[in-house]
Amino acid sequence: MSIKTIEWKDNSVIMIDQTKLPNNLTFVKYTKHTEIADAIKNLIIRGAPAICVAGAYGLSLAALESKATTINGLINDLENAKQTLFATRPTAVNLSWGLDKVMNAAKKCSNIHDVKKSIIRTANKLANDDITTNMAIGRCGSELFNDNDIVMTHCNAGALATVSYGTALGVIRSAKDLGKKIKVIATETRPIQQGSRLTAFELKHDGIDVDVIPDTATGYIMGNKLVNKVIVGADRILSTGHVFNKIGTYQLAILAQYHKIPFYVAAPLSTFDLNNKPEDIVIEQRNSNEVTNIGNQKTAPEDVGVINPAFDITPPYLISGIITEKGIAINPYQISIKKLFD
Amino acid sequence: MSIKTIEWKDNSVIMIDQTKLPNNLTFVKYTKHTEIADAIKNLIIRGAPAICVAGAYGLSLAALESKATTINGLINDLENAKQTLFATRPTAVNLSWGLDKVMNAAKKCSNIHDVKKSIIRTANKLANDDITTNMAIGRCGSELFNDNDIVMTHCNAGALATVSYGTALGVIRSAKDLGKKIKVIATETRPIQQGSRLTAFELKHDGIDVDVIPDTATGYIMGNKLVNKVIVGADRILSTGHVFNKIGTYQLAILAQYHKIPFYVAAPLSTFDLNNKPEDIVIEQRNSNEVTNIGNQKTAPEDVGVINPAFDITPPYLISGIITEKGIAINPYQISIKKLFD
Repeated sequence: MSIKTIEWKDNSVIMIDQTKLPNNLTFVKYTKHTEIADAIKNLIIRGAPAICVAGAYGLSLAALESKATTINGLINDLENAKQTLFATRPTAVNLSWGLDKVMNAAKKCSNIHDVKKSIIRTANKLANDDITTNMAIGRCGSELFNDNDIVMTHCNAGALATVSYGTALGVIRSAKDLGKKIKVIATETRPIQQGSRLTAFELKHDGIDVDVIPDTATGYIMGNKLVNKVIVGADRILSTGHVFNKIGTYQLAILAQYHKIPFYVAAPLSTFDLNNKPEDIVIEQRNSNEVTNIGNQKTAPEDVGVINPAFDITPPYLISGIITEKGIAINPYQISIKKLFD
Repeated sequence: MSIKTIEWKDNSVIMIDQTKLPNNLTFVKYTKHTEIADAIKNLIIRGAPAICVAGAYGLSLAALESKATTINGLINDLENAKQTLFATRPTAVNLSWGLDKVMNAAKKCSNIHDVKKSIIRTANKLANDDITTNMAIGRCGSELFNDNDIVMTHCNAGALATVSYGTALGVIRSAKDLGKKIKVIATETRPIQQGSRLTAFELKHDGIDVDVIPDTATGYIMGNKLVNKVIVGADRILSTGHVFNKIGTYQLAILAQYHKIPFYVAAPLSTFDLNNKPEDIVIEQRNSNEVTNIGNQKTAPEDVGVINPAFDITPPYLISGIITEKGIAINPYQISIKKLFD
């Protein structure tokens, strides 16, 4: 079994501190929903499906923290906690989806005790479903990959981005489980290095062959035919097939198309936002010190301007297929994505 | 005047230690040619035109170091020093060009004293010519840039990559000197961060507006029309117009073409290699710890595989123009480059 990123245990949340990887595999324990919000903000946990579960467990902690004596008071406390948790990563649609799931379960209950029990049960179900879903995504996607494929991936859409198993890396795990030999090329993924720190770590942990490259070498690798497929995860997918994912995904998709290399996205249905248009979504700009400092080392002059978007948008015509637990959507996406939800 | 990267003074070589930038502007002093070779290898000095001059000054030091009592003995010592210096960066053609210039001057002399004097004089002339050449490149290229242009550049093809003024950044300095308002977007340029460390440093030093972006944001910046031109330097340009430059240049050129953004290369004629074909040139692979460590911080798991090419090749059909001190070569490059040398 691959690494378990987040877990509910004895009325507290245990998660891997991903900021300490790849040097130390350490776990942190939280009992307050604000700690969960800070953990998401500070990237102790990241990856759209993982923060969906973190958000749900955050509400579970908020329910236990609440001193409300009426059900309305409790729901009010939960709504406040939901706002705090949601504000941490507004682009990742799964977080909002998970928070709504838990709140809807809570609102169906008739007393405080039931609300608390139901919230924890719903959050645990989301966590378990995440693993089942990832394995289904893996099964769906594995048919697209062949023996001896070399697959480039960006950021970390692996076990560490989910509760376990992963989405994009789940597809690779699944292909490998079918006996196919797959080698992975992981982009470093500046500015946070989720590729070199997390993807390389979890693949090595599971004995999957992986090479790390700087983000500047993606064109070189494709041009020299050192890779024959690309697979990434997603933070939000629209009904049109527009994919919001880690900054750098869009340029990777352009480069893949230029080199005639298939470019796949793997994500659960909870990543889909069927209501918004690309222009409706605001891309988070992250702190400039992620770019101007590496660890404690200053790598740019004092007060230099920085543009540091968290995400970019990959348009559907650059995507060869979107792999979900219900099947693979292909162009025309408006139709094929709609079918997944029928 | 922009920063002076390298200088001959009192029979020694003074250069900026670029590994200490942007935090400290410190100078190092060398009196042995092997120190120059190490400085090139360790990127204390880098940039094709700058290491050309460093190589020439390396030979000057070797001439002063030599204990030979015959002219043949001295030439022999110089040939050995030339090999040591050349081996530091075989891809950058200017280094070999500069070493040959100095050796040819040496071989014309009839006594030891004249050889030593001639070598130093030739190296000093190369250094002075570099500045004159860069200003001529700047004048040629500045006509391509308009008031309020936002220009992306990769790596550092600036004063710090030359003796002073720069090639790609020389064009920007020249456009600015003509009264045009130019803003620069500097890619970080992993793995060595020449963009955030050096380009941002020298542009801020000269009061030129600059923003730094991670290498993963180049597609986003182009797609969002936050830039309207790209200019880079070169380490080697073939008669076909194939450009060898810092890893990441090739993908930037593809992205520029995709977004219909002009992509320019600026380099002196000493960068041209009219004899070789693209497949003849071996791309240096650099040490994996440049990718797996940032400063003292480990950013990838122990013993992970790494692909870390120093350069890539940008084919001519992706290049809008190659700016030299003798004019701008455009497609068809076979013809226009030949004309520059007539």
